[in-house]
Amino acid sequence: MFNWKNANNPIDNDSRNLLNKNRSILNQEIIQNMYGEGATQCEYEDISEAFIFSQVRDFDLIELEQLLQSVGWSQRPLRRVKRALDNSLLKVGLWRHDSKFPRLVGFARCTGDGILEATVWDVAIHPVYQNSGFGKKLMIYIINALKQLGVKRITLFADPGVVSFYKSQGWILEPKGKRCAFWYAN
Amino acid sequence: MFNWKNANNPIDNDSRNLLNKNRSILNQEIIQNMYGEGATQCEYEDISEAFIFSQVRDFDLIELEQLLQSVGWSQRPLRRVKRALDNSLLKVGLWRHDSKFPRLVGFARCTGDGILEATVWDVAIHPVYQNSGFGKKLMIYIINALKQLGVKRITLFADPGVVSFYKSQGWILEPKGKRCAFWYAN
Repeated sequence: MFNWKNANNPIDNDSRNLLNKNRSILNQEIIQNMYGEGATQCEYEDISEAFIFSQVRDFDLIELEQLLQSVGWSQRPLRRVKRALDNSLLKVGLWRHDSKFPRLVGFARCTGDGILEATVWDVAIHPVYQNSGFGKKLMIYIINALKQLGVKRITLFADPGVVSFYKSQGWILEPKGKRCAFWYAN
Repeated sequence: MFNWKNANNPIDNDSRNLLNKNRSILNQEIIQNMYGEGATQCEYEDISEAFIFSQVRDFDLIELEQLLQSVGWSQRPLRRVKRALDNSLLKVGLWRHDSKFPRLVGFARCTGDGILEATVWDVAIHPVYQNSGFGKKLMIYIINALKQLGVKRITLFADPGVVSFYKSQGWILEPKGKRCAFWYAN
């Protein structure tokens, strides 16, 4: 299991050597090989660490649920989570690069028809990496990915603590008196 | 094109004869043949008309868009609508039965992963048939269909005019201070 107490330690030497020291940019071939087609490096000011967005690298479900629980969400049966991921329109992982053990530090997924509507769920940045701009970059990444699909409207349900986060990024809250309604299974 | 002015006229004689006169229930074989597997008759007090819920009968896209526009929604390119329907988790049509020309009088669709989350979109009952309980029956139908899939939470965005409609049916509006957020393509 990854020791989060060490999360801020520099990445291992092998990985470090792959960084372009002037621009802290990983070799694109390394990124594609490890994180899959279309993976891109996320800008980050500290050159001792590198972070990668990927829509295709497989998730370790236990690691994913640990991430979601670290931001306060309740545990869900892994079998159901797996099926929900399989049926999602888009899944994005933000990985702290390590040549041996990349770690999932951010996540979000979308459901929807991919044409008229998309809805964002399960947005999480691990507490160790919060307040570093990753949340904003993750949302921009998602909006761009959905834009490329041609989606006309993106929606999400914001918990009270993050309403101002979305508002500050230009999301329209409850436009024209719209209300969100929820039904929960017993 | 269907003349909505005549929508309240009794259904044609062929169809009328298929009704069980005591209980105004259509023959189940007729329903399956015309509306597809799993189609069910919607209860309705007036035995001169019969209404059917179907998840599988194909939609005439022009008729569907006319229905959605009749409740005030703006026109959308049919090609995009078709793709959005194809990518939906669930599509429900409410048909006014006629042995030759069944007419679409109600509609709703859902997106989602079908496991943890589902979101309801494009709920419409044609104005001629509003205030007859069809809206409520359509929502009950959808909740039951999603329950059968095992969905844990259903969400929707309610326009100001229908917030009380959903509230009266037990939907929880903005639980715990949640806010809904929207992003629109330029």
